[in-house]
Amino acid sequence: MKITVLTLFPEYFIPLIQTSILARAHQAGLFTFETVDFRNFTKDKHGHVDDTPYGGGAGMVLKCQPILDALKTVRTKDSTVILLTPQGHPFQQRMARELSLKSHLIFICGHYEGFDERIRDYVDLQISLGDYVLTGGEPACAVICDAVLRLVDGVIKKDSSDEDSFSHGLLEYPQYTRPEIYDGKRVPEVLLSGHHANIEKWRHQMSIKNTVKHRPDLLKELEFNEEDQNYVNSLLKKDEI
Amino acid sequence: MKITVLTLFPEYFIPLIQTSILARAHQAGLFTFETVDFRNFTKDKHGHVDDTPYGGGAGMVLKCQPILDALKTVRTKDSTVILLTPQGHPFQQRMARELSLKSHLIFICGHYEGFDERIRDYVDLQISLGDYVLTGGEPACAVICDAVLRLVDGVIKKDSSDEDSFSHGLLEYPQYTRPEIYDGKRVPEVLLSGHHANIEKWRHQMSIKNTVKHRPDLLKELEFNEEDQNYVNSLLKKDEI
Repeated sequence: MKITVLTLFPEYFIPLIQTSILARAHQAGLFTFETVDFRNFTKDKHGHVDDTPYGGGAGMVLKCQPILDALKTVRTKDSTVILLTPQGHPFQQRMARELSLKSHLIFICGHYEGFDERIRDYVDLQISLGDYVLTGGEPACAVICDAVLRLVDGVIKKDSSDEDSFSHGLLEYPQYTRPEIYDGKRVPEVLLSGHHANIEKWRHQMSIKNTVKHRPDLLKELEFNEEDQNYVNSLLKKDEI
Repeated sequence: MKITVLTLFPEYFIPLIQTSILARAHQAGLFTFETVDFRNFTKDKHGHVDDTPYGGGAGMVLKCQPILDALKTVRTKDSTVILLTPQGHPFQQRMARELSLKSHLIFICGHYEGFDERIRDYVDLQISLGDYVLTGGEPACAVICDAVLRLVDGVIKKDSSDEDSFSHGLLEYPQYTRPEIYDGKRVPEVLLSGHHANIEKWRHQMSIKNTVKHRPDLLKELEFNEEDQNYVNSLLKKDEI
């Protein structure tokens, strides 16, 4: 897996590949990561990469030329070119999994007010991180790179990624570690029982309960077996959540 | 506005306050930003902040003690304590606006598998950035800080933030800058007309069109006047989008 980020702020991405899990994976050669400062590609004699919008209005607009010339130098037939934009497909775990199987991802990070609309014609995929506005595409890009790279083979242990929230469409079950009592709050008895089948069942039901309580919108994507569906129905009926 | 981030990876946040718009605002004293490494608060003799989960399973769980002791040293009656977690409220522009009015935000960034469930009892707000899994809370926290800080008074020009995507619940209209023709693609005629009322109308309709085309789910949150509603209906009927 190779990632190339077109950005005016290459320094933004230093911690991403120098911190924790991704730092170890990067050093181990599990992925390569490069940034390209598209300011270096501008043909504007003052070094500008943006200009005022046609039709007037606040702010500046990123020009086609520097970004698209930079793109030409890094794009190959194996590249997937991604534009970070509010009108893109909302980013989700399923998309992270799909992207983690690609060989070369190129991200274009906008900044300032936005970019010339014509740039969209040159990308393969438009992604939005969520319904909020950022100063630029960089923080969003770092999140997507993190979500994608942790799914690349060898970056984290397989059994870890299998148990995460959203991997099965449910939120995670509650976790506890020592001490047994903290500030008067006890660990649930079942987790101390050593009875693996009961622990499994409790965790699975707590995952369902968390999802029903906090993110009922996720339920419609799921297919439950009869036992789980009965449990969901009982939670919804009881109003105890 | 003051932001405190409890994290095992303080270095992750250096670019956030050393890059572009937020760097200038930080230097101008428009907000203060600090990180607290909660590893410094552990009473574990080996310096560990995590431990194996009760009930078994993959991965490690962050302990209550280091995080909650660190929290005690920074929390005041003016603090809003936020936990980044998949089961939190999905982060949206409205929440960014609300948080930008607070005087002190404290973020707790988990890492590894998760954290001891009892930590939730000590926070004011749980936020999820979106339905995807990250190596830790840090990239998500950087996004939320960026979205919130840009709304703090003086960080960006008021007329800029008013025109952004999602500020009025619609996606943004297309922007163009020089040249008039790039690679055979022309800027729309209306933007060159100098006719401000027509430009306004075109932009507003394009915002609606973008939203209908890319994010029809946003429409149900909006109240249109009669003219706009007729336009939405015509788009939905025509199937031209």
